[in-house]
Amino acid sequence: MGILAVADERFEEALRTGIGPWLDGDVEVLLSGMITSRNGWVETPYIDVPAGLAAVRSGVVGREIGGGARLSFLPGVCQRSPTPDVMRGEEIQIFGAFGQGESGVAVLPGTHSKWAAVDRGRITGFRSFMTGEVFAALQGHTILGRLIPEGAPAADPAAFLAGVRQGAEAGSPGLLGDIFSTRSGVLLGAFPPAEIAERLSGLLIGHEIAGARRLGWTSGPVTLIGEAPLCARYGSALAALGISSRPGPADAAVEGFRRLATF
Amino acid sequence: MGILAVADERFEEALRTGIGPWLDGDVEVLLSGMITSRNGWVETPYIDVPAGLAAVRSGVVGREIGGGARLSFLPGVCQRSPTPDVMRGEEIQIFGAFGQGESGVAVLPGTHSKWAAVDRGRITGFRSFMTGEVFAALQGHTILGRLIPEGAPAADPAAFLAGVRQGAEAGSPGLLGDIFSTRSGVLLGAFPPAEIAERLSGLLIGHEIAGARRLGWTSGPVTLIGEAPLCARYGSALAALGISSRPGPADAAVEGFRRLATF
Repeated sequence: MGILAVADERFEEALRTGIGPWLDGDVEVLLSGMITSRNGWVETPYIDVPAGLAAVRSGVVGREIGGGARLSFLPGVCQRSPTPDVMRGEEIQIFGAFGQGESGVAVLPGTHSKWAAVDRGRITGFRSFMTGEVFAALQGHTILGRLIPEGAPAADPAAFLAGVRQGAEAGSPGLLGDIFSTRSGVLLGAFPPAEIAERLSGLLIGHEIAGARRLGWTSGPVTLIGEAPLCARYGSALAALGISSRPGPADAAVEGFRRLATF
Repeated sequence: MGILAVADERFEEALRTGIGPWLDGDVEVLLSGMITSRNGWVETPYIDVPAGLAAVRSGVVGREIGGGARLSFLPGVCQRSPTPDVMRGEEIQIFGAFGQGESGVAVLPGTHSKWAAVDRGRITGFRSFMTGEVFAALQGHTILGRLIPEGAPAADPAAFLAGVRQGAEAGSPGLLGDIFSTRSGVLLGAFPPAEIAERLSGLLIGHEIAGARRLGWTSGPVTLIGEAPLCARYGSALAALGISSRPGPADAAVEGFRRLATF
């Protein structure tokens, strides 16, 4: 459950409800993600990149609760230049997907997609793309959503990939100059309203991938981490742009915690 | 008043309230903009670019009302490739700013900013950028708005231009990859929350201008058409990126209608 689902910040109660029997005795509980943010239970600092297991371990903020369990609130990871960026929780998944000797690029699609460069298990740089949240805002709170038919949209890979290719074109005038076409195309009869959502999604993901390409992170194969359907969607977009990808472990977060616990 | 301000589509009543005494006798009334759209009074077609006074005149849809006045609903203008785009109303302002022998680039900042190439009074190509509407959606309906202080933001040219430059950088990973930094920068203490709105506005306008640059429309001077404060904002952003601009006529729409009426 997310921190917003915990009423009145009763975090300890929520923890006991979830894993109460495990909290008796000499046990360390690792906590990561928004539970360590300003709006969470215990705020922890951000560790600057490059950041691996050791650096993240060094930023733990401890808290004891009754019963013997020690809570270890893990820090987030930040990058201060060329532009400020932060993550809280995704680093655990990245540690789970990349062992201490492994290098590559991790892609974590979602509300705030993260792309991260990993060098021998350490995160050396990363960037957040607000793809998922911007999609929801455009669909729900701009004129682009008005023509979208009610009800769950039908999957339409062709419309999605048309959007991906348009967004990733070298001559694209940018996202702001591309998205209005999902409405104009309907007004001019170029495609039906049923395609708007998939084209818009494709445009956004195409722009995200083109942005990562400008950062030099698309020589591939990139490692996709997250829910399988969303990773498959990104995999098809990457493939359409000639970028290979491979799925990360399904339990990347669990594996990341395990590596931190035993480090 | 906009069409949304007219209750129950009582458009004729609204017209008579506004200019009733002028409707008696042999008079032509030109109507343009959303009043000619699907949600307006009389829907008119779109005229393909290149489109000048003659082409727009040819697309008029007439309607008689009692009293002798003839209503001429003007068409919109469209472009079908490389991507579909439409305008309704802005073309009148462009005709007002560019005489029949004049060429250049028109920039109409706003909810849906328009950039248009004009060749001897005819619109030869254009692009809509959803800058204003996306700004409102990001500020009002994403996490970026949460840290923005309540109340009217103070103008902050330095923060605005920092955003403009970041957005227009050749190495930018695109809008989706830039905007999260307006939040991360605050979390990391790089700048105060009071700067978020101006930086975000600058980022969006910087991306818009960079997009227009990729379309080859920024050799300047470009002609800015619209409300003076917004045009001044764009003028300062353009200048920061080395692009010269000049103000169009303050009454561009009136002048455009006059040219159409007397064509």
